[in-house]
Amino acid sequence: MAKELTSRSENYSQWYNDLVVKAGLAESSAVRGSMVIKPYGYAIWEKMQRILDDKFKETGHENAYFPLFIPKSFFSKEASHVEGFAKECAVVTHYRLKSDGKGGVMVDPDAKLEEELIVRPTSETIIWDTYRRWVQSYRDLPLLINQWANVVRWEMRTRLFLRTTEFLWQEGHTAHATREEAILEAETILKIYADFAENYMGVPVLQGVKSANERFAGAVETYCIEALMLDGKALQAGTSHFLGQNFAKAFDVKYLTKDNRQEFVWATSWGVSTRLIGALIMAHSDDNGLVLPPKLAPIQVVIVPIFRKAHQLEAISEKAMEIVNALKAKGISVKYDDRDTQKPGFKFAEWELKGVPVRLAIGPRDMENGTVEIARRDTLEKETLRMENIADKIENLLKLIQRNIYQKALDFRTENTFTVDTWNDFKAQIEEGGFVWAHWDGTPETEQKIKEETKASIRLIPLDGKIEPGRCIYSGKPSERRVVFAKAY
Amino acid sequence: MAKELTSRSENYSQWYNDLVVKAGLAESSAVRGSMVIKPYGYAIWEKMQRILDDKFKETGHENAYFPLFIPKSFFSKEASHVEGFAKECAVVTHYRLKSDGKGGVMVDPDAKLEEELIVRPTSETIIWDTYRRWVQSYRDLPLLINQWANVVRWEMRTRLFLRTTEFLWQEGHTAHATREEAILEAETILKIYADFAENYMGVPVLQGVKSANERFAGAVETYCIEALMLDGKALQAGTSHFLGQNFAKAFDVKYLTKDNRQEFVWATSWGVSTRLIGALIMAHSDDNGLVLPPKLAPIQVVIVPIFRKAHQLEAISEKAMEIVNALKAKGISVKYDDRDTQKPGFKFAEWELKGVPVRLAIGPRDMENGTVEIARRDTLEKETLRMENIADKIENLLKLIQRNIYQKALDFRTENTFTVDTWNDFKAQIEEGGFVWAHWDGTPETEQKIKEETKASIRLIPLDGKIEPGRCIYSGKPSERRVVFAKAY
Repeated sequence: MAKELTSRSENYSQWYNDLVVKAGLAESSAVRGSMVIKPYGYAIWEKMQRILDDKFKETGHENAYFPLFIPKSFFSKEASHVEGFAKECAVVTHYRLKSDGKGGVMVDPDAKLEEELIVRPTSETIIWDTYRRWVQSYRDLPLLINQWANVVRWEMRTRLFLRTTEFLWQEGHTAHATREEAILEAETILKIYADFAENYMGVPVLQGVKSANERFAGAVETYCIEALMLDGKALQAGTSHFLGQNFAKAFDVKYLTKDNRQEFVWATSWGVSTRLIGALIMAHSDDNGLVLPPKLAPIQVVIVPIFRKAHQLEAISEKAMEIVNALKAKGISVKYDDRDTQKPGFKFAEWELKGVPVRLAIGPRDMENGTVEIARRDTLEKETLRMENIADKIENLLKLIQRNIYQKALDFRTENTFTVDTWNDFKAQIEEGGFVWAHWDGTPETEQKIKEETKASIRLIPLDGKIEPGRCIYSGKPSERRVVFAKAY
Repeated sequence: MAKELTSRSENYSQWYNDLVVKAGLAESSAVRGSMVIKPYGYAIWEKMQRILDDKFKETGHENAYFPLFIPKSFFSKEASHVEGFAKECAVVTHYRLKSDGKGGVMVDPDAKLEEELIVRPTSETIIWDTYRRWVQSYRDLPLLINQWANVVRWEMRTRLFLRTTEFLWQEGHTAHATREEAILEAETILKIYADFAENYMGVPVLQGVKSANERFAGAVETYCIEALMLDGKALQAGTSHFLGQNFAKAFDVKYLTKDNRQEFVWATSWGVSTRLIGALIMAHSDDNGLVLPPKLAPIQVVIVPIFRKAHQLEAISEKAMEIVNALKAKGISVKYDDRDTQKPGFKFAEWELKGVPVRLAIGPRDMENGTVEIARRDTLEKETLRMENIADKIENLLKLIQRNIYQKALDFRTENTFTVDTWNDFKAQIEEGGFVWAHWDGTPETEQKIKEETKASIRLIPLDGKIEPGRCIYSGKPSERRVVFAKAY
């Protein structure tokens, strides 16, 4: 193999890190906790961005851009928000360096800011400070705005894509005339996120709301999608918050109603980040490397020529370029790998590592027979097909792979979803992994104790969970419905 | 008029600021020197991004993402780079806030960083620190990488889009095996920038190289495009730097050649920023507002119904939607403005302010006659046309407007380009404005003195300027060719 990966069974966490680095997705940088997103990883992010951005725009949202820096005082305006974010902020205190007289540079003590600036961990405060100027009357509403940006949260324990000091994301911030409209917006976005996860990433997700403990700092309700990774741990893949009037009150954003009253505006915010790439990796990949769903694969098809002599390569290349052109005409991204510095076996392993969904190999015998060998990354199956209408066949195969990747992940989730009714069963199952549906008495105290004893958190209270009276697995108190527990990233 | 602008003749600088704010492009934020880019302004930036990004990819470049923060010590590694950038950097010194016990927050003195982090003013240092790991042999070259990012340069005097503490840009950073290949890359990018300015922005540009004084800190040669604004001042619209081996040496990036020698890598970097939006505004707009070239206009066509009664609106709307659909089918972006809260006159002024290239008005008489009134933003001319094939007519008109906007700007530049041979003529012409071609003795000292006495800088040494011996307008010493002087933004 081109680049040896640690196997998942040996050390899952090492496997993940190896894979991210060796598949060329990202690597650690010289700045603690910050990553470099390499071209192949960034190409996946660009695909994600394009798809989500189109969906936001179809539903009436516009993009804008707000400042990276936020005055420190803004953070104290919304009480619970500051609690949630103040602890993990990068703070700018100076605006100039100067020579240290020894060939290096030092911070110029004369260039101290009067008020320190916080590098945004999220932008509610600066945006609501702006919305105060933008909203006067009901005619100015709704404001449906999104931004694509970098944010910084000072993390002590970091992992590529999953938890980094700086990450890329989109953050939507909307303002509405009524509570109902804001809730509908938060739910609409949740559906977009769920659709994106399932139909593009091939990752089935549960939809629900967070318990009070897990809610966004400043939200009235946090909607979320939760996915199950192949190691049995859950990953929060996106959140959409109904913020009530909390930020409108903190930043004094009122509007004149049709009947001439001054009312506070209702708000939502919502986001997904480069974390999704971590979810994508851990939902599908194997010991050979990445498995990418066709809709997000930067390269959907790779063609590898098998040859000994130059004249063989020439004939194969001619045929390969025909296929390349036919695929491109269908909007399929394809790479013809005719490097003469590497052997086919090396190339096969490399493209497997990089998760390219379909690999074609064409050798002299194929040329004689009018065939081509097709290998699927998702099943690792190979098949020899006739060249006629090969582009159509590949197009269909990509659709099949997209569905199969989702179905495999769904089957895995089904097999790893459990219903338990006793504390002992609960502890045992949490240790094993998976989504665990169990009764909970609804109190933050019980939730906290369960977390302390098992490391499991309530991932969500399902939106479509059925009403089913029972008793809390921990306290034995009555419960109306099961909630979903898991250990999580 | 909807929103009164200061006229250009009265106060150009106030006109510019009014226009940016009232047309909904951007506004100042609570953070000194940082702007909020509003949806309409951001939509222009997105169009610019999409076009440039496609051109970069067509020429083999890939996007990636490097960290926002750069360790302070990196800045001392390339001597001239630190000179150019250290003076204007935002510095992160702490990573946590805490309660100040009075309801506010304060910087936690216990959370001081060992080494301060600089918010990137440009990314050469962090990227070349990364390239050391990516480049081993000639097989790893060239590296053709671009990133879309925010950067921060602490500016004392700021202006929306033209000079802000934080701005958005793209920065390309490439690594090559040979000097020639790197120079070719820098020139290729300059051509892309010039093509973009002329054929999309409708802004004619001069191409050339900077004098030593104006060169990028760390570059061997800085290529640039320069545009002339309607007030007679120049604006640098994009730069592409040949960096020689300066950064490779500073960060020890070597590669193994085909014949087994270790050599330092050759580099380029290049960028354009949201400053281009400032250039776009000042190259075409007038006292009525923005004039946008169709290729960059977020809305290319607006349709305004003229009606008194509801049944009239209904019939007009039906016709308007036919036109909307026919235009959309051609990929033309169109807005039907059927707001009942505003009168047609208000709408006309508003869309003029926002620079929409084509406005259609349809009233009851048009419905009877099968006509529509078309107004061009660039010339402010109106014409009544028959509805048949209206989409084709509009498509052609948009092309005509795109050409006309460029031609007008080109004519303006021609009329405002001067050749002078004496110091008195030079001073007088610089005071008047425009591009001034004059002889210069080639020394930084003379350039500096001219700048001190006239505020004019050498905008560029033209790439295609003819060899024409003469005498420096300031020192009288011999000169080989004329260079271009102007006062600049």
